[in-house]
Amino acid sequence: MITLTTDFGLKDPYVAEMKGAILSISPNATLIDVTHEVEKFDVRMGAFMLASAAPYFPAGAVHLAVVDPGVGSERRTIVVQTKQAFFVGPDNGILMLAAQEQGIQRIHELSNPKFMLPMVSWTFHGRDIFAPAAAYLERGVEASEFGPQISNPVCPSFGSVERSNGCIKGEILHIDGFGNIVTNISGGEVAEAKMVELKLSEASLRIAVAKTYAQTRLKDAVVLVGSHGFLEVALNQASAAKKFIVKAGDKVEVSLLRV
Amino acid sequence: MITLTTDFGLKDPYVAEMKGAILSISPNATLIDVTHEVEKFDVRMGAFMLASAAPYFPAGAVHLAVVDPGVGSERRTIVVQTKQAFFVGPDNGILMLAAQEQGIQRIHELSNPKFMLPMVSWTFHGRDIFAPAAAYLERGVEASEFGPQISNPVCPSFGSVERSNGCIKGEILHIDGFGNIVTNISGGEVAEAKMVELKLSEASLRIAVAKTYAQTRLKDAVVLVGSHGFLEVALNQASAAKKFIVKAGDKVEVSLLRV
Amino acid sequence: MITLTTDFGLKDPYVAEMKGAILSISPNATLIDVTHEVEKFDVRMGAFMLASAAPYFPAGAVHLAVVDPGVGSERRTIVVQTKQAFFVGPDNGILMLAAQEQGIQRIHELSNPKFMLPMVSWTFHGRDIFAPAAAYLERGVEASEFGPQISNPVCPSFGSVERSNGCIKGEILHIDGFGNIVTNISGGEVAEAKMVELKLSEASLRIAVAKTYAQTRLKDAVVLVGSHGFLEVALNQASAAKKFIVKAGDKVEVSLLRV
Repeated sequence: MITLTTDFGLKDPYVAEMKGAILSISPNATLIDVTHEVEKFDVRMGAFMLASAAPYFPAGAVHLAVVDPGVGSERRTIVVQTKQAFFVGPDNGILMLAAQEQGIQRIHELSNPKFMLPMVSWTFHGRDIFAPAAAYLERGVEASEFGPQISNPVCPSFGSVERSNGCIKGEILHIDGFGNIVTNISGGEVAEAKMVELKLSEASLRIAVAKTYAQTRLKDAVVLVGSHGFLEVALNQASAAKKFIVKAGDKVEVSLLRV
Repeated sequence: MITLTTDFGLKDPYVAEMKGAILSISPNATLIDVTHEVEKFDVRMGAFMLASAAPYFPAGAVHLAVVDPGVGSERRTIVVQTKQAFFVGPDNGILMLAAQEQGIQRIHELSNPKFMLPMVSWTFHGRDIFAPAAAYLERGVEASEFGPQISNPVCPSFGSVERSNGCIKGEILHIDGFGNIVTNISGGEVAEAKMVELKLSEASLRIAVAKTYAQTRLKDAVVLVGSHGFLEVALNQASAAKKFIVKAGDKVEVSLLRV
Repeated sequence: MITLTTDFGLKDPYVAEMKGAILSISPNATLIDVTHEVEKFDVRMGAFMLASAAPYFPAGAVHLAVVDPGVGSERRTIVVQTKQAFFVGPDNGILMLAAQEQGIQRIHELSNPKFMLPMVSWTFHGRDIFAPAAAYLERGVEASEFGPQISNPVCPSFGSVERSNGCIKGEILHIDGFGNIVTNISGGEVAEAKMVELKLSEASLRIAVAKTYAQTRLKDAVVLVGSHGFLEVALNQASAAKKFIVKAGDKVEVSLLRV
């Protein structure tokens, strides 16, 4: 089983070229799209997508992720083996959020031309290097056969959380298609609260903590623990991101209120 | 074989999380997307999509449909067994248009935690309840094992058709990507006519009945029996919905003309 | 293995109806989407998508492509057998760019009703004629069983390249999702040059030839050999098409400069 996460979009033939390359090597592989609508070159968004989806796939899955602004430069290409799965992609941090959660066992460079397409282009390593690597892993080739082991992968620094004076400071990790605001603050931090004070952009808001969207009135705001375990700000059947005019990367501050 | 119909979009990892949950239970299931671009919370559009696609799938298929504004509320979760297939989703009407066409045999609630993910979130029953249910059905678990039988499912009332003084009054069921206007009026009603008078928004139009788009001049309007059997208003290679400024839910009146 | 290329979009149930029709005939077929986001009725774009993806699929693949403004008219429906694969679609040129590259062996009309759905609509041959044909080919039915052989398929004339006074005149074949400008000029023509003079819209530009996007400064322009082997104009991490305000079909002139 091989999953695919890219910023290639669905309008171009690039994703199909990758799938053709995979199926030419491993004709019986099951291919599942995570998303191909990552914003162009947005490694953080790609990392978040992959980390959200990977936990739900069976042991032994191969996760291919290509958001690769540095294609053709000196950036390395890698395979990461964890306790549950394999991750294949550029060494720019996109794989690490998901891989670290599963426990990394070893990381190897993809330098063995035996596991690439015969002609490697300068601009499309997704098709010429990463897709074949995923297909050979799926067929049982060992991670160590792809190239030398490395110990210094590029690690992302997606806004860690700070605490001061009872206030939790984090950032917006993602705005989903419903306009829900997913933060990087663990949902456990607010699970026991009934009400929080929230700073978003310039505004300061008092919002009730709920278990689910439908617990509030239509278009009212709630704070809840989203399906990924993170603190989420949402409206019931409307877009919180539009109402509060925020975007991924913006700062968020949360204080628990005693009611 | 499992089909998926949702309003989750393709940009977020939600669909992939559902597919991972399915494949973790039933690794050899064939997964087919009907669409994930249903307008958010638009149960009617989801019901129409599912009813359009379901007849073309083999007997025994499991159809999973999640447009679920009430997730986490008291709305029930159900499996509907018909003579041809299984339908899984919230009890808000989304399944019924397709299921009724096939002949409903039994409906059961999805209340047995044995067939859910170990951790059920409050906000994402698509992944935690519906996807596992579809996977277990695909593996042969009987509908009756999921929970008690129910006899009062929520049934949608998507504008029934009225007749008076030789005039058929219905509504617009869907505007497709080509801008074709699909009504809820059976195509058989006009199949023998050569010309109809049509009321759309405020306008009254006389339009020829044709068998196919290409039978008229470029950008001219035709009335025809669409591929789903409904009366459709279309332009040859242009958008009828843009020209006539209409949307799903709008009223339509048709009178047959003798020419 | 069957690939699908259409202009149906992903919002409507049309693609799923085609897949259901295929799987009802050939339940174990592997289905791969090339794209369903071809601009409506844009046969050239469909032909380019198919020709880009087809070379990467295994021998014996069946490629189904439906961009079909003439559906229901007298245009023929065909299967093209090449040395590597089968191509199924309308006889309007969409199949020929890909098929000619592989070496055409024979072309047959799809006229045998035995290999269509029992009810053929006037408006959706994708589902009723092309999808079943692809499924039967995948099951091993011979091309000759579908109908009489033909020798005069419609061939597209997607801007051939001219040369005069050291200048190569071609056109823009496609703008990809990154805004890269793909021309119909073979990359081999410029592979040895270091700098070219390029006429795009009204502007005349001197641009360096590079091997990869990352070889230039952020947002600077480069000319390179794209992953499909064509000359491409790109910006490093930005949209060349937006900067130079061009679209598919526009003329391009290239002169090699001695630096």
